[in-house]
Amino acid sequence: MKRAMRMIKNKAGRLVPLYVNGIKQIPFKGVDKYKPKGRKAAPAIPSCVDFPEAENKLVKNLKKALELSGLKDGMTISTHHHLRNGDMVTNYLFDVIHSMGIKNIRWFPSASFPCHEHLIKYLEDGTIHHIEGSLNGPLGKYASTGKMEGTGVLRSHGGRYQAIQDGEVHIDIAIIAAPSADKFGNANGLYGKSACGGLGFALADSIYADKVIIVTDNLVDFPCVPWQISGNNVDYVVVVDSIGDPAKIVSGTTEITKSPDRLLIAEYVAEFMDAARILKDGFSFQAGAGGTSLAFIPFIKEKMKQKNIKARFVRGGSTKYLVEMLEEGLTDYILDGQTFDLEGVRSMRENPKHIMTSPFTSYNFHGKGNFASMVDAVVLGATEVDLNFNANVVTHSDGMLLHGIGGWQNCLYAGCTILAVPSFRDRIPVIVDEVTTLCGPGDLIDAVITERGIAVNPARKDLIKKVKKSSLPLRSIADIQEEVYEICGRPAKPKLDKRKVVAVVKWVDGTLLDSVYKAAE
Amino acid sequence: MKRAMRMIKNKAGRLVPLYVNGIKQIPFKGVDKYKPKGRKAAPAIPSCVDFPEAENKLVKNLKKALELSGLKDGMTISTHHHLRNGDMVTNYLFDVIHSMGIKNIRWFPSASFPCHEHLIKYLEDGTIHHIEGSLNGPLGKYASTGKMEGTGVLRSHGGRYQAIQDGEVHIDIAIIAAPSADKFGNANGLYGKSACGGLGFALADSIYADKVIIVTDNLVDFPCVPWQISGNNVDYVVVVDSIGDPAKIVSGTTEITKSPDRLLIAEYVAEFMDAARILKDGFSFQAGAGGTSLAFIPFIKEKMKQKNIKARFVRGGSTKYLVEMLEEGLTDYILDGQTFDLEGVRSMRENPKHIMTSPFTSYNFHGKGNFASMVDAVVLGATEVDLNFNANVVTHSDGMLLHGIGGWQNCLYAGCTILAVPSFRDRIPVIVDEVTTLCGPGDLIDAVITERGIAVNPARKDLIKKVKKSSLPLRSIADIQEEVYEICGRPAKPKLDKRKVVAVVKWVDGTLLDSVYKAAE
Repeated sequence: MKRAMRMIKNKAGRLVPLYVNGIKQIPFKGVDKYKPKGRKAAPAIPSCVDFPEAENKLVKNLKKALELSGLKDGMTISTHHHLRNGDMVTNYLFDVIHSMGIKNIRWFPSASFPCHEHLIKYLEDGTIHHIEGSLNGPLGKYASTGKMEGTGVLRSHGGRYQAIQDGEVHIDIAIIAAPSADKFGNANGLYGKSACGGLGFALADSIYADKVIIVTDNLVDFPCVPWQISGNNVDYVVVVDSIGDPAKIVSGTTEITKSPDRLLIAEYVAEFMDAARILKDGFSFQAGAGGTSLAFIPFIKEKMKQKNIKARFVRGGSTKYLVEMLEEGLTDYILDGQTFDLEGVRSMRENPKHIMTSPFTSYNFHGKGNFASMVDAVVLGATEVDLNFNANVVTHSDGMLLHGIGGWQNCLYAGCTILAVPSFRDRIPVIVDEVTTLCGPGDLIDAVITERGIAVNPARKDLIKKVKKSSLPLRSIADIQEEVYEICGRPAKPKLDKRKVVAVVKWVDGTLLDSVYKAAE
Repeated sequence: MKRAMRMIKNKAGRLVPLYVNGIKQIPFKGVDKYKPKGRKAAPAIPSCVDFPEAENKLVKNLKKALELSGLKDGMTISTHHHLRNGDMVTNYLFDVIHSMGIKNIRWFPSASFPCHEHLIKYLEDGTIHHIEGSLNGPLGKYASTGKMEGTGVLRSHGGRYQAIQDGEVHIDIAIIAAPSADKFGNANGLYGKSACGGLGFALADSIYADKVIIVTDNLVDFPCVPWQISGNNVDYVVVVDSIGDPAKIVSGTTEITKSPDRLLIAEYVAEFMDAARILKDGFSFQAGAGGTSLAFIPFIKEKMKQKNIKARFVRGGSTKYLVEMLEEGLTDYILDGQTFDLEGVRSMRENPKHIMTSPFTSYNFHGKGNFASMVDAVVLGATEVDLNFNANVVTHSDGMLLHGIGGWQNCLYAGCTILAVPSFRDRIPVIVDEVTTLCGPGDLIDAVITERGIAVNPARKDLIKKVKKSSLPLRSIADIQEEVYEICGRPAKPKLDKRKVVAVVKWVDGTLLDSVYKAAE
């Protein structure tokens, strides 16, 4: 067994490694306490002299493009996740890399999905050294049990942009799967058999990577418009038969939960936003694509119609429910990071008020502001939350790393951050004494809404004042916890090997917020 | 008098200074011979910690915004030229800077216009040290006569992007006049009383300047869409009564020349493109807003209709003539750097196939290709052209610096570059023995079309082969020159003081192509 890492306690009281994969780290300093020094990453200056045939950057296959890009052992290769669980490019990419005998790649996806289980064999044979990016499902389980050679690094969507922009992660070669592209390299996700919506998660990659390869199954004549990815940043274009499985890229339908408990939570969320006087003409909100988040939309729509108000903007991931709001005139705009269903893709393609955003505009904390901090209210999930409102979104209470952070951390900066969670799952309490992994400091979480009651963060005295006269079931978070403990029993501590850090969680500013430890299989 | 500058002869045989404004220069090495080393400019990393109220970046006035931006003597201040001769922001800006007692500013506009004559007093009193950017009309005359303290630096639109991107010019404060903006700093030029179309020429400024100030007369609710300028790059927003004079920002109408000679040239251009087999389905062209360039459009439209073909794209500066082509289905797209008339603005606002481009996508030579090099044919003007097809676009034959370069140099990379020029102007021959100022190497100029005949560059044997069987009046360039010399007489040499370089002309790669000397008043 390797020697245990040298650890330091950060401002959140969590132990984090001094070095991760050989790179010195900055421990978390507290919310808004760390200010970056220095300058952004500076890509090499290219020249049109090296692109005499820029109008045609086609190369015959991905292997050739990787060779021309100078692929070598130990490089960092990035991919994006807009094709979600239908992605057929990343597995193929690593099949090619493996066939070339290349080792020790740092894979830097914007997110991974269960379909990437295929890559475990490449983690095992040393093709991939480690993954920096979300570790969902099978890959998370693999990493959790200490099998990955390097240490996983978990970042929010905004944190990923920040890390690239700030030069913390240098991408050698970016692979951008594109549902539409021209030979110059302009690309978008709106058209073609593999349409997925926007390609915003690949934006930083396209700007900062040394080499950028577009992989498409739908070559169109120049200009491919809109150019969500600019061909001026692209080196090579590769055409393949298929970049993805359309049924898994976007679901034909996204469905609202039928669980009475979850529906109750959703109703409480809408009631709470009303009581907190957030529902005003011109307000804004963000809700994800989870069943509870979706379920909240019909309730809030009803209230908006009653009050005869409309939102200025809502933020996606978009679904047919948000699209309906736009089309019914209940919001002026959807500002959308990714489209989760076919209606979302159609709307982004057809409706100029359904606007693609990127992690740069929406989430990057090392910018001059971002959209997430301008949203009036956000509804998020969590796997665990503690009595100080600190929350976990990546590990389960058994310590297994099963989820990515997504935009979750970035969204905590909204005017009102609501965690909409069941009080327990599979008889495991959600409100715990200490979160297994800290992903969001309680300072930024304003309310926890469960089917058993609503706990407002005591630090938000203004919010408490607003909602206290409502008929909502307001309780202390300890009170809800106690009730659940009586039902489920006090949860067992996860069995973790604290000598082995399998992954770390970055905060939005690039500092280290927490460590994820090896869990029992 | 100051000591003469140390000069060196470059690959074009022109003498250029070793240092300009104290900065070491690279002499022109030949077309496509210079490759940049090093990395792009790296802006300081900002943080949302410094933007706790990012949703509202309003400050009370421009003076306050300049103070907050840390304005100091000797800084570089940039502006853009989308408001053209109707710009009311730049003069006001320097009134404010002058009132603050600030000196020695390097003014870095994307172009200057006659309306900026107001600034001569600030050149005289030391508020402005020198101008890097086009020197049109009165400012050009001022500089030409040796009165400007520093040396002017003339760059193409692409060269300006390149210089900012490559860190050759560091902008301390960018002032971006915006016909529409929100309090976050998102901005566009499409809406409002001062609508001018796109804001692409301010893109590099917004990305690379230390501080970015939006000045608008039309504040809209967030989100201001489309955000041609991203608020994530903006520090301050200032609201003023008016940023410009609408009648001078865009002309209500752009008119085709009525001169029979110019119309004949325009007709020859269309005929030539036909004979050269450029007019094929899916072809592309760029033509500017000059009278002759506009005049060529009806002729080419007629030919396209006869042949039943359409263009894949045409490139603006757009006018009502290009808009008509788009609306009549004669082109799939307009890819537009700036809109020259009201119809252009309307079309860019309303038609998703009328697309804003920027100097990054269109012109930057230090990118992985650009649009200008993908255009099949471009029609350009010139003040002078020599027997080797070298051309001048900035000075007149008397040596006076009266025009900017615009995208002219960048466009020379088109598949077929046509100079459409009268054989003489005011009895001064256009085809000369030696151009007063070299702006475009003859290697890149394929044909010179005058009312007296068409000269194809002998190096373009392929082109000669294609057109030689046509009925066009093909002649050698020397032959045309001789005829004009017989009419006008051999032109006098300009009276220049070769000891005094008043400005330099950069090539698209940042190297020094030529010097502009002090001229007699």
